Amino acid sequence: MSDRTSAAAATTNGAVEATVEAYVATWNETDVARRQARIAQAWADSGRYRDPLMGSTGHGEIDAMLAAVQARFPGFVLKRTSKVDCHNDAVRFTWSLGPASGPSVVEGVDFGTLTPEGKLATIVGFIDKMPAA
Amino acid sequence: MSDRTSAAAATTNGAVEATVEAYVATWNETDVARRQARIAQAWADSGRYRDPLMGSTGHGEIDAMLAAVQARFPGFVLKRTSKVDCHNDAVRFTWSLGPASGPSVVEGVDFGTLTPEGKLATIVGFIDKMPAA
Repeated sequence: MSDRTSAAAATTNGAVEATVEAYVATWNETDVARRQARIAQAWADSGRYRDPLMGSTGHGEIDAMLAAVQARFPGFVLKRTSKVDCHNDAVRFTWSLGPASGPSVVEGVDFGTLTPEGKLATIVGFIDKMPAA
Repeated sequence: MSDRTSAAAATTNGAVEATVEAYVATWNETDVARRQARIAQAWADSGRYRDPLMGSTGHGEIDAMLAAVQARFPGFVLKRTSKVDCHNDAVRFTWSLGPASGPSVVEGVDFGTLTPEGKLATIVGFIDKMPAA
């Protein structure tokens, strides 16, 4: 790989990491205006989120989904628990959700696709650890 | 979940598993006609494969990619190493690649999306274990 290619790849990865950091922040930001600003930073306008339990499409639905999760599980924090692994227009990372201190309650992995502008077009979450119903 | 919903979900999962089994078979089938038949069984016409090292779009390119991998690594077998985990139009499973007996050489996870007909629209592979270059 040439130095030029390496530099371009490093820049790209940095941009993807910034998008993922903004995405993680959307889960934890309870101030409505700041959460919506983070959603606009992370997601394309038509962004589409799906996991086994929830789904939302577009900034408004994504914001309402996150507000509902925060209301249901006050004090829970989403933490990224792996590196940001990306290639082509795809990204993956693992995460945990639970109280700020103490063991996680839910764990999983998010697979995302990115627009040419580097925003999230899709996130599909899969669950690796979940409390029994 | 009603019995009717459960039955529908079980049928769907079975169809997704059959698609994934056909996909895994495409990696291991070295007879050209049989491999192409498996590709047609697993993939939508415009199916798109991407991993950090390779990419192909459409049945012809996918077939050429698989033939090249088989020629480069004769005797290697792709094995699925997790359950088929699916929800909405998405699926994931882990896999290993290596000699039929003995330790794997490469390991990773495939994340796929499905058409309404249950064929693969996309597969994005990520690598979890790879020999040093």
